[in-house]
Amino acid sequence: MNKQRIEIYDTTLRDGEQAAGVSFSLVGKLRIARRLDEFGIDVIEGGYAASNPKDMEFFRRLREEGLSHARLAAFGSTRRAHTAASEDRGLQALIEAQTPVCTIFGKSWLLHVREVLCTTEDENLAMIRDSVRFLKEQGREVIYDAEHFYDGYRDDPGYALKTLKAAEEGGADRLVLCDTNGGSLPEEIHAVTEAVAEACTTPLGVHAHNDAELGVANSLAGVRAGATHVQGTINGIGERCGNANLVSIAPALFYKMGCDCLCGEASLRHLKSLARFMWEEANMRPYPKAPYVGDDAFAHKAGMHVDGVRKVPASFEHIEPEKVGAQRRVLISELSGASNVFLKAVEMGIDVDRKSPEVREVLKQLEKLEREGYEYESADASFQMLIKKVLKSHKTFFDLEAFRVMVEKRSKSEPCMSEATVKVNVGGETEFTVGEGDGPVDALNQALRKALMRFYPSIADVVLKDYRVRILDPEEATAARTRVLIESGDGRRVWGTVGVSENIIEASWEALVDSVEYKLFLEEESGPEGGGGA
Amino acid sequence: MNKQRIEIYDTTLRDGEQAAGVSFSLVGKLRIARRLDEFGIDVIEGGYAASNPKDMEFFRRLREEGLSHARLAAFGSTRRAHTAASEDRGLQALIEAQTPVCTIFGKSWLLHVREVLCTTEDENLAMIRDSVRFLKEQGREVIYDAEHFYDGYRDDPGYALKTLKAAEEGGADRLVLCDTNGGSLPEEIHAVTEAVAEACTTPLGVHAHNDAELGVANSLAGVRAGATHVQGTINGIGERCGNANLVSIAPALFYKMGCDCLCGEASLRHLKSLARFMWEEANMRPYPKAPYVGDDAFAHKAGMHVDGVRKVPASFEHIEPEKVGAQRRVLISELSGASNVFLKAVEMGIDVDRKSPEVREVLKQLEKLEREGYEYESADASFQMLIKKVLKSHKTFFDLEAFRVMVEKRSKSEPCMSEATVKVNVGGETEFTVGEGDGPVDALNQALRKALMRFYPSIADVVLKDYRVRILDPEEATAARTRVLIESGDGRRVWGTVGVSENIIEASWEALVDSVEYKLFLEEESGPEGGGGA
Repeated sequence: MNKQRIEIYDTTLRDGEQAAGVSFSLVGKLRIARRLDEFGIDVIEGGYAASNPKDMEFFRRLREEGLSHARLAAFGSTRRAHTAASEDRGLQALIEAQTPVCTIFGKSWLLHVREVLCTTEDENLAMIRDSVRFLKEQGREVIYDAEHFYDGYRDDPGYALKTLKAAEEGGADRLVLCDTNGGSLPEEIHAVTEAVAEACTTPLGVHAHNDAELGVANSLAGVRAGATHVQGTINGIGERCGNANLVSIAPALFYKMGCDCLCGEASLRHLKSLARFMWEEANMRPYPKAPYVGDDAFAHKAGMHVDGVRKVPASFEHIEPEKVGAQRRVLISELSGASNVFLKAVEMGIDVDRKSPEVREVLKQLEKLEREGYEYESADASFQMLIKKVLKSHKTFFDLEAFRVMVEKRSKSEPCMSEATVKVNVGGETEFTVGEGDGPVDALNQALRKALMRFYPSIADVVLKDYRVRILDPEEATAARTRVLIESGDGRRVWGTVGVSENIIEASWEALVDSVEYKLFLEEESGPEGGGGA
Repeated sequence: MNKQRIEIYDTTLRDGEQAAGVSFSLVGKLRIARRLDEFGIDVIEGGYAASNPKDMEFFRRLREEGLSHARLAAFGSTRRAHTAASEDRGLQALIEAQTPVCTIFGKSWLLHVREVLCTTEDENLAMIRDSVRFLKEQGREVIYDAEHFYDGYRDDPGYALKTLKAAEEGGADRLVLCDTNGGSLPEEIHAVTEAVAEACTTPLGVHAHNDAELGVANSLAGVRAGATHVQGTINGIGERCGNANLVSIAPALFYKMGCDCLCGEASLRHLKSLARFMWEEANMRPYPKAPYVGDDAFAHKAGMHVDGVRKVPASFEHIEPEKVGAQRRVLISELSGASNVFLKAVEMGIDVDRKSPEVREVLKQLEKLEREGYEYESADASFQMLIKKVLKSHKTFFDLEAFRVMVEKRSKSEPCMSEATVKVNVGGETEFTVGEGDGPVDALNQALRKALMRFYPSIADVVLKDYRVRILDPEEATAARTRVLIESGDGRRVWGTVGVSENIIEASWEALVDSVEYKLFLEEESGPEGGGGA
């Protein structure tokens, strides 16, 4: 069968950077471009050519470096009204960027022509035609982005088509239909794209946004109706609700629609890694529920589902996680059964029988603890400590003798002071320390670390990364149980622990202790490198 | 024109709770059910009937309370193989739940029948038929969820249809086609749903998941092909990548597809507020890029867009933000906020000019506080106190001189002790008291009440009803800011207050003080007997 070849066009570096809170440095942009090239993106839109020195420098650097196969595009717009294309500053800047591809956008919607551009229907057509022709004459590949195409077509199909014809007359290599406001429905995208495919001979593209949570669906609808070029961003980064998410579009095209893409099977195995890289570069928190690449995407919680997945993976997974570089994860929870515990033990490298009394004992304890409010989905380290305790392989690194926390406000205008003392026993020796912090838990953490540091220097590497508090049974308000979840890291690994008590300080203490003990276990397992000890 | 009426079925409390990290308390579930009812959801699935005491208690409580228009559904499965329906524990539990609607799922996919259920094709059909019939005979409305329907149909359309026919023969009121693994494409959903609509006479529903980022599109494709019932969750909360997101589906059905929904125009104006409420209840961080309801959904950054929006709002917005209870964010939006502050002041009976410097001053303070992490959505009382303070009508009921909180653990086996002292000045008199409690905040609350009781006996009526904690900027872990939300009540009214600090104790103190002061204001305004106020 002759597979349809789809060209993937990434605009993370231009439209993606419009997102609230996203701003790439020059070095970051270069790093991203190399990574996109390596992944198998066909065209990389690097930024605005006009009035942006950072982007111009970016184009210059990449020109020197070269890319292994991707074509680089500079972005701009059609010429200003009543100006010759050759005199237009924006078009000149596009030429100066010296990229093989120039992408320019123009107006398709009469509302915009009249109210925003404040010009005539005919002048707008001339602006499109002249600008494309000018860039073609300079030897560039020209991609024409028809802004607001679907809205414009809804308003006046005849005029919207005329704008595309103008670009076609200018010699455009691609006509890209944009759903700029992101509000169209897939069936509209399909119908309009199909109509355009009949009227034009130039290859079509689709550029969607996610304002109606339909960015991916609209992109796929465009392809199904004949588009052979798809624009989007990694992780759907972009203004408002984001651009169409290439991370979800690429595997759908390749694995679900049977299309051929430069980023095919081998590339898609790095999809999760690419997504994580981009979150990092954009300084965004990885989104756990992201399709294909989020940490929850292949996480199974319900006992029945886990049982099913164990029997036949396809039974609750729409694609093998390995195909997109992800892994199946089993969540431990109230709704789980013996198979969850067993799978987790296997994952930890502990050799137990699925029907052994130990597994049943872990399950019994788990049920009791969960009834008390413990929750292990985000506290994998605490769960591992629980398994170790039941399997009798738990070693005590230190014993608490006492702690005290004090928070004091001495006057209305002064901030609170927090102070904590901790008394622990390590191998027969008592250590008594005091710490202070921004709050009671911070103070307690400081004091505990100080007490243990002498015996276990590797404790110095542990950093608290996240701290979450939830009040259970809130009808009893402050007298109710408190669950504390702590996320810790040591630069190499990240782990979660949990504590529950009627007292928030005690719950925090429990989670802190689990975190520290888990770190000491890791050190012990991986050799004495990091810590001596008693 | 006769609009198609679509029934909205919410399963946040059941399928939504499968999400990693989501676990609702009984009180939380009741609060959510009331809110969904108020919003205009047609059917609310409350949880599992079998083997879950929390859910059974939930059904009992709601039966006593009643809902204003929504029908409540209990969830379960078809009977076990080779067991009479009347003997089946799960089906019995569904009857014991005493809900008007019972929803049961059954297998449509032969792979599952054989490998997971380990039974025969015929027995599976009998299980479906018998179970539906049994529940119908007990007078229930029965919704049949055909698990993995689209995968099953792809595998063996004949058998998949037979399972629906079995449910139809049993007397099912709805046949709901589930894309359980969330991997189907909209055109597949459309084609299969259309084929089923031709083969069956029972009204159809669609239940989609978001694993391919197509949950919303697939739900809409189902409706376009003839489904009149849509299942999903608020904010798309759910296992793996989540369920189909009702928050995006409802406005698309109503505003873009011209369907009629119980949650129509008036309800949709509360869409953003509903979404925020649910994030809070699920203890999830609000997702700024969420379509329609995220803080970025109508935020404009690009200079050109801002200019366009100013000239013609529709030019860069696919829907008016007000229709979904959202607001455009362009610059630091003084004008949009001013009318809110003004409306609130009017609501409070305070006479101010809309353009007065006071209103502008409240706005300025509000912006500053929100930047620091304050949030007034659930803290109306604190917002009113802020207005009163700026409008100089704030009366000081008491002044804090100092407080101290101490939490002590004397040995590993003893529980923590919590003690607090509070020194306040009331009209020149100093009161110095001590209290103890289950935790530091409880102790502080006890001491504060003791200090004020002599001067303001009505304080005795105030009860803390809920206490919520959220850590902001979690990267800085325990040194990060903490937001505390407190819900208080006095038997007649319920009000919310907020406090923010790097120190959880200080944030709690702030919220406690606002709560107490608000109560004293209410008393003053309405007299000791009155029932006025918010």
